Amino acid sequence: DFLHALNEVRPAFGVDSDELESYLTMPLIDYGPPFAQILKSIRMMSDMVRHSDVTPLVSVLIHGEPGTGKTAIAAHMARESGFPYIKVISPEHYVGMSESVKVNKIAKVFHDAYRTPLSVVILDDIERMLEYVRIGPRFSNPILQALIVLLKQRPPKGKKLLVLCTTSSKALLEELSMVTAFDTAIHIPALSEPKYIEKVLQSLEYYDSTVLESVVSSFRGNIAMKKLILAAEMALQAKGQDPSTTLVQELLARIREFEL
Amino acid sequence: DFLHALNEVRPAFGVDSDELESYLTMPLIDYGPPFAQILKSIRMMSDMVRHSDVTPLVSVLIHGEPGTGKTAIAAHMARESGFPYIKVISPEHYVGMSESVKVNKIAKVFHDAYRTPLSVVILDDIERMLEYVRIGPRFSNPILQALIVLLKQRPPKGKKLLVLCTTSSKALLEELSMVTAFDTAIHIPALSEPKYIEKVLQSLEYYDSTVLESVVSSFRGNIAMKKLILAAEMALQAKGQDPSTTLVQELLARIREFEL
Amino acid sequence: DFLHALNEVRPAFGVDSDELESYLTMPLIDYGPPFAQILKSIRMMSDMVRHSDVTPLVSVLIHGEPGTGKTAIAAHMARESGFPYIKVISPEHYVGMSESVKVNKIAKVFHDAYRTPLSVVILDDIERMLEYVRIGPRFSNPILQALIVLLKQRPPKGKKLLVLCTTSSKALLEELSMVTAFDTAIHIPALSEPKYIEKVLQSLEYYDSTVLESVVSSFRGNIAMKKLILAAEMALQAKGQDPSTTLVQELLARIREFEL
Amino acid sequence: DFLHALNEVRPAFGVDSDELESYLTMPLIDYGPPFAQILKSIRMMSDMVRHSDVTPLVSVLIHGEPGTGKTAIAAHMARESGFPYIKVISPEHYVGMSESVKVNKIAKVFHDAYRTPLSVVILDDIERMLEYVRIGPRFSNPILQALIVLLKQRPPKGKKLLVLCTTSSKALLEELSMVTAFDTAIHIPALSEPKYIEKVLQSLEYYDSTVLESVVSSFRGNIAMKKLILAAEMALQAKGQDPSTTLVQELLARIREFEL
Amino acid sequence: DFLHALNEVRPAFGVDSDELESYLTMPLIDYGPPFAQILKSIRMMSDMVRHSDVTPLVSVLIHGEPGTGKTAIAAHMARESGFPYIKVISPEHYVGMSESVKVNKIAKVFHDAYRTPLSVVILDDIERMLEYVRIGPRFSNPILQALIVLLKQRPPKGKKLLVLCTTSSKALLEELSMVTAFDTAIHIPALSEPKYIEKVLQSLEYYDSTVLESVVSSFRGNIAMKKLILAAEMALQAKGQDPSTTLVQELLARIREFEL
Amino acid sequence: DFLHALNEVRPAFGVDSDELESYLTMPLIDYGPPFAQILKSIRMMSDMVRHSDVTPLVSVLIHGEPGTGKTAIAAHMARESGFPYIKVISPEHYVGMSESVKVNKIAKVFHDAYRTPLSVVILDDIERMLEYVRIGPRFSNPILQALIVLLKQRPPKGKKLLVLCTTSSKALLEELSMVTAFDTAIHIPALSEPKYIEKVLQSLEYYDSTVLESVVSSFRGNIAMKKLILAAEMALQAKGQDPSTTLVQELLARIREFEL
Ligand SMILES: Nc1ncnc2c1ncn2[C@@H]1O[C@H](COP(=O)(O)OP(=O)(O)OP(=O)(O)O)[C@@H](O)[C@H]1O
Ligand SMILES: Nc1ncnc2c1ncn2[C@@H]1O[C@H](COP(=O)(O)OP(=O)(O)OP(=O)(O)O)[C@@H](O)[C@H]1O
Ligand SMILES: Nc1ncnc2c1ncn2[C@@H]1O[C@H](COP(=O)(O)OP(=O)(O)OP(=O)(O)O)[C@@H](O)[C@H]1O
Ligand SMILES: Nc1ncnc2c1ncn2[C@@H]1O[C@H](COP(=O)(O)OP(=O)(O)OP(=O)(O)O)[C@@H](O)[C@H]1O
Ligand SMILES: Nc1ncnc2c1ncn2[C@@H]1O[C@H](COP(=O)(O)OP(=O)(O)OP(=O)(O)O)[C@@H](O)[C@H]1O
Ligand SMILES: Nc1ncnc2c1ncn2[C@@H]1O[C@H](COP(=O)(O)OP(=O)(O)OP(=O)(O)O)[C@@H](O)[C@H]1O
Ligand SMILES: [Mg+2]
Ligand SMILES: [Mg+2]
Ligand SMILES: [Mg+2]
Ligand SMILES: [Mg+2]
Ligand SMILES: [Mg+2]
Ligand SMILES: [Mg+2]
Repeated sequence: DFLHALNEVRPAFGVDSDELESYLTMPLIDYGPPFAQILKSIRMMSDMVRHSDVTPLVSVLIHGEPGTGKTAIAAHMARESGFPYIKVISPEHYVGMSESVKVNKIAKVFHDAYRTPLSVVILDDIERMLEYVRIGPRFSNPILQALIVLLKQRPPKGKKLLVLCTTSSKALLEELSMVTAFDTAIHIPALSEPKYIEKVLQSLEYYDSTVLESVVSSFRGNIAMKKLILAAEMALQAKGQDPSTTLVQELLARIREFEL
Repeated sequence: DFLHALNEVRPAFGVDSDELESYLTMPLIDYGPPFAQILKSIRMMSDMVRHSDVTPLVSVLIHGEPGTGKTAIAAHMARESGFPYIKVISPEHYVGMSESVKVNKIAKVFHDAYRTPLSVVILDDIERMLEYVRIGPRFSNPILQALIVLLKQRPPKGKKLLVLCTTSSKALLEELSMVTAFDTAIHIPALSEPKYIEKVLQSLEYYDSTVLESVVSSFRGNIAMKKLILAAEMALQAKGQDPSTTLVQELLARIREFEL
Repeated sequence: DFLHALNEVRPAFGVDSDELESYLTMPLIDYGPPFAQILKSIRMMSDMVRHSDVTPLVSVLIHGEPGTGKTAIAAHMARESGFPYIKVISPEHYVGMSESVKVNKIAKVFHDAYRTPLSVVILDDIERMLEYVRIGPRFSNPILQALIVLLKQRPPKGKKLLVLCTTSSKALLEELSMVTAFDTAIHIPALSEPKYIEKVLQSLEYYDSTVLESVVSSFRGNIAMKKLILAAEMALQAKGQDPSTTLVQELLARIREFEL
Repeated sequence: DFLHALNEVRPAFGVDSDELESYLTMPLIDYGPPFAQILKSIRMMSDMVRHSDVTPLVSVLIHGEPGTGKTAIAAHMARESGFPYIKVISPEHYVGMSESVKVNKIAKVFHDAYRTPLSVVILDDIERMLEYVRIGPRFSNPILQALIVLLKQRPPKGKKLLVLCTTSSKALLEELSMVTAFDTAIHIPALSEPKYIEKVLQSLEYYDSTVLESVVSSFRGNIAMKKLILAAEMALQAKGQDPSTTLVQELLARIREFEL
Repeated sequence: DFLHALNEVRPAFGVDSDELESYLTMPLIDYGPPFAQILKSIRMMSDMVRHSDVTPLVSVLIHGEPGTGKTAIAAHMARESGFPYIKVISPEHYVGMSESVKVNKIAKVFHDAYRTPLSVVILDDIERMLEYVRIGPRFSNPILQALIVLLKQRPPKGKKLLVLCTTSSKALLEELSMVTAFDTAIHIPALSEPKYIEKVLQSLEYYDSTVLESVVSSFRGNIAMKKLILAAEMALQAKGQDPSTTLVQELLARIREFEL
Repeated sequence: DFLHALNEVRPAFGVDSDELESYLTMPLIDYGPPFAQILKSIRMMSDMVRHSDVTPLVSVLIHGEPGTGKTAIAAHMARESGFPYIKVISPEHYVGMSESVKVNKIAKVFHDAYRTPLSVVILDDIERMLEYVRIGPRFSNPILQALIVLLKQRPPKGKKLLVLCTTSSKALLEELSMVTAFDTAIHIPALSEPKYIEKVLQSLEYYDSTVLESVVSSFRGNIAMKKLILAAEMALQAKGQDPSTTLVQELLARIREFEL
């Protein structure tokens, strides 16, 4: 029980390193200028928190289609900041808890942050944290209210906090009057150019350049990073089981299935 | 009590063999190419989980009209996988439990899976697990939210998990924004060709070929596997009680009653 | 307390004889062919349960207007089956219980059945069990969900179960997506022919044939069995108190009041 | 505590005499034929319960505009029956209780009745018992469901029960699918004829015949019994305080204010 | 604790004098005939309760725009009655209580009244007691139901009760089917005539007659008593701080701001 | 525990100085006449409370777009009053509490105020206190009801209370019928004139006059005080990281992004 309690207490301070790593099992692929621009924008916010006394709290909304890489980018930027307190609030840790327990657990992460000079809080997948479902719509109003308040609450004198939140639907947050609680919003786009797709497939090192060229010359459309990686994997598997098909056929079929 | 506790603990690890057998009391009938294709598609997913490190989690949505054989197929493929951890989440075991107990019981199945290198979780009859009813609609949002999170949660490093879910209504899951939580979806069709129906009736061995021919030549329509088997049974019973009728008449009457 | 406990336990196994009798205080009146046909159809299902191994579970929906005799017929057929386990789930025993207690009590009846080779469960007046009311509509979703699951749950190997359910509104069960949980549905009609009404009144032995003839020749319409019996009773009482009226007048007045 | 317990138990059996008297502080005024006819109809039901074995349960719905005398008539007829068990279920005794306590208290009244050969249960002001309010509408579904079941539940062999229910809105009970639970319905009209109004005012003995004549010749309309009595009282009071007005003027003014 | 208990018990009987005084910190201003007429009407009801045995319970609805003086008038008339039991039910004493505690506290006030020969219960600000809000609308149905029942419940033999209720919206009570629970309704109008406004300002003694004349000759409209007093106060304060304005200007500006 | 209790009790009386300071980390910028007028209006209310006996309670609604400075102004005026009891009710202290705890905590602040001769209560961000969300809309009715009652409840004799409430949406409070609970309303506008914006930027001392002139001559629109300060900060940071841009460009870009 003592060990268990210890375990409970440990991650309250310091850095959720294991968790950050779990979102970054592969290095981020630099597929081109939009990616560089995203990193730069978030880095600017992180620097402002570090250096300015007038803005001790900056909250950033990272939004984009499912699987575009929001969580990986938030984790990457948090790690890069080198801040001494980095904590992840993710729906996976809140499964099966009551609304009030969730609210208190979320508030605790913020209140712990207020005790460190420099902190990052990642609030991953807001719609899941809110238990949002389109029908109704239904969502947890206590959690929503707590988040709006916490996102606006200035840390005490001398403490600084960067909040990185991810969501698949900025429109939904507008519907919930939550967007005004953020200082700024950054969009993570799907892969929209053939050359970006080519770059990603290249760096996976599964396919030779002729396959890549065929695929890239045949597909015009958007696909999310996570789906493109899955498509590459599935095509390999399918080809392995069925000699009558080609890698190009299989890969194109999956990419088209996953097109946004 | 000790034995009872033991019993409670036992199925947490290992394979729910009894349960799988209960869904497979008769061998699956190979009625033709669509059936073979279904098995092949699911097998590919199961192989990808086994072999790829990039996709340690694959979730498959098995959908089709009531009685088409979704549960039997999921059970068959799970057994075929030979994975050391196979667990069934089925509404039958959750009757009368509170929402929060259900969520915790479901989460436990997944968390136990994370402790085995290779696992299959069958999530049978999602709409019943969600306590969904069209009027309202009403459903358990805590269960829905937990499922969406669990279906996307990557197992820890080195662990792999295949999730097979069945539902009678993919449209309903779309309404609940749950479809995007699946990596792929496989459709189980009703029996739509006379020759498929003939094959099934043949393998039941109740009727001689003249009866089969008459029935098959008179019926054009779709019928679910489970209903066809019930129709065959009822016709036999009705004929047994009423000498003034013929097997063909009785069988056709039932099949038409059950036509989709 | 011991006796009380005993009493509580006793009806879990065996036959709810007292309860069956209470629904059958008068012998069923054989008013003609539709009645015989109803009994035959239910008997066929009961035989199929008894004899087939492929269909160890058969669930029958007995539906018809209020007072047409659904409960009496279900009780009659259960008794006739001679099965060693016959249990009645009726709203009268559930008044004032919480939803969860109801669900557990219902589930217990089914689970007890799974321990006997041959069982009948009568589920009387589904809309009352569901606490259904048109406005809203409101109903107990936990009870609905439990019923759908229990109606489809196959008994363990070697056990067989016939479920007889009654409802005044099949349409309502369709609205609740509950009809697909039944294997078959049997309609109990109101008395629709003069000769059926005559037969019923005759067997009550309150009126001589001239009264019957007058009534039967004047009334064209449908009336439920229970209402016809009540009308006959009320007419007798009214005539007894008022010499200025005739039995025919009184009887016709009541029958018309109760016409469907 | 013993006395208190005794007190609690006492009214369970026997007759709620005090309560009946409180509804009958003045003798019912026989204002003419409709009144006689109402008493006769209810008396017939009460006799049928007493004498017939086929109808051991009769439930009567007494409905009419507010203040027409429903409660007084039900109390009067219950007392007249001379049955050994007469119990009143009235919203006044249920203020501030939870739904489940109410349901159990109501059910207890019926279950106690089943232990006496001849019983009357008065269920006064159903819409208040149901906590009904037009907006929504809102009402207690557990109470509604319990009432529907209890109104249809046959007493055990050899026991007989008359249920007298009052409501100001039969239409509302139809909306709630509750009307079919009654065997018959009796309407209590407002006072609709000048001669009925005259009869009532006469029997109050406040006014001389010239006042009565003036009033009766000037007013054409409906008024509820209770309101007419209140009007007579208020006119007297007003005249007493203001010499510049006449009794006729005051009485007419009040009657018109209260006209339905 | 003993003292506390005593304190809890003390106001149950007797007169809530402090509370009445708090609503009557200034003497009521006799601004003209409508005021006199209101007092006379309520006094008549109070006398009827005192003198008649046929109407031991009279409930009066006092309604009018916000701030017109309803509470002050109810308090004044209660005090004037000289009844030995006068109790105020006011939302201020119910803040933060649960619905069921509120209902029981309200019921207690009535039940205590039934033990005194002559009682007044003031039920102040019904919409607040009901926790009514237009959106939805939402309100406490348990409190509504309790109030309707308590407003109609006759005191026991020999006890008499006058109920004075205030509301800013009779229409709302009609929506809630609550108006029929009252025996009579009295309207408190806003100040609608220049001479009434003049009379009120005069009696405040802040302004000389020239100011009054200017104001009264310039304003045609309705204003509530409470707002007129506030306007007079604010104009004085504003003038005191700003020498460049006149009292007439300031007073007119406030009165116009508060016009109904 | 004793210390903890002490700590709990301490802020009940006296002044929430730390909290007031936290809202006033920078001195208020006097950007021109509208600002002076706002302070004057609130000061008049505060003086009226101090000096008049007829208005011992004055409640002021301070409303304006997000970030216009409502909270800072309320804090400033409360501090300026010099009243011995100044207490802040702010959503930050209520995160994760149940509705009933919130209501009681709010009521306590008011009841403590009634024990001091001169008090200010700041009720900050009413929509957050009400847990309001547009969808539905949903909000805490118990908190709403308590606030309406507390805002109108007169302090006991000899005690005086000024209530300053802030909200971003007066329209919303009208929807909730809450506006009539206030004695007066004061609007805090966004910065709408170039010269006001210039004044604010000047006082920040980040930019030289040529930058200010360029910005002010290019922008016509409204911006909230808080956003203008954030824009100034972000432009500085952006320019610091990117030599290819100018301060004027960066500042204008942010101001336009934040324009109302
Ligand atoms: N440049 C990149 N940016 C983001 N992710 C990348 C990049 N390159 C590779 N990835 C990989 O792509 C995946 C992106 O998935 P991630 O879960 O971060 O997306 P997401 O937008 O958060 O998805 P969801 O909407 O489901 O939450 C990760 O596995 C990550 O390692
Ligand atoms: N080729 C087949 N595929 C599937 N089921 C088969 C096949 N051949 C025979 N069966 C039998 O058909 C029945 C199919 O029923 P099953 O419960 O699996 O259907 P389901 O689609 O899950 O139904 P439901 O929609 O009610 O959940 C089983 O009894 C199974 O043994
Ligand atoms: N042939 C018959 N079929 C059914 N009931 C009959 C028949 N003959 C007589 N009865 C009598 O008619 C009555 C039918 O009432 P029963 O309660 O069974 O109807 P029900 O359809 O279940 O009514 P409800 O809709 O109110 O539940 C019983 O008293 C039964 O004894
Ligand atoms: N002939 C009569 N019938 C009924 N009530 C009468 C008659 N004569 C006098 N009364 C008196 O009229 C009053 C009728 O009031 P009662 O409360 O019974 O009406 P109600 O219809 O139940 O009213 P509510 O709709 O408010 O419940 C009683 O005081 C009763 O004593
Ligand atoms: N003639 C009068 N009638 C009523 N109130 C008067 C009169 N003269 C002066 N007053 C004063 O006017 C004020 C009326 O306020 P009161 O709270 O009674 O109004 P209300 O209608 O109950 O308001 P609300 O709608 O807010 O409940 C009181 O302070 C009262 O002392
Ligand atoms: N003249 C001024 N008036 C108000 N605030 C000013 C002024 N000058 C500078 N400020 C600063 O501007 C900021 C205003 O923010 P504040 O939180 O008070 O706004 P708000 O309207 O309450 O915002 P929100 O709508 O988010 O509650 C504060 O940091 C305050 O110090
Ligand atoms: Mg993510
Ligand atoms: Mg299935
Ligand atoms: Mg029945
Ligand atoms: Mg009544
Ligand atoms: Mg008032
Ligand atoms: Mg603010």
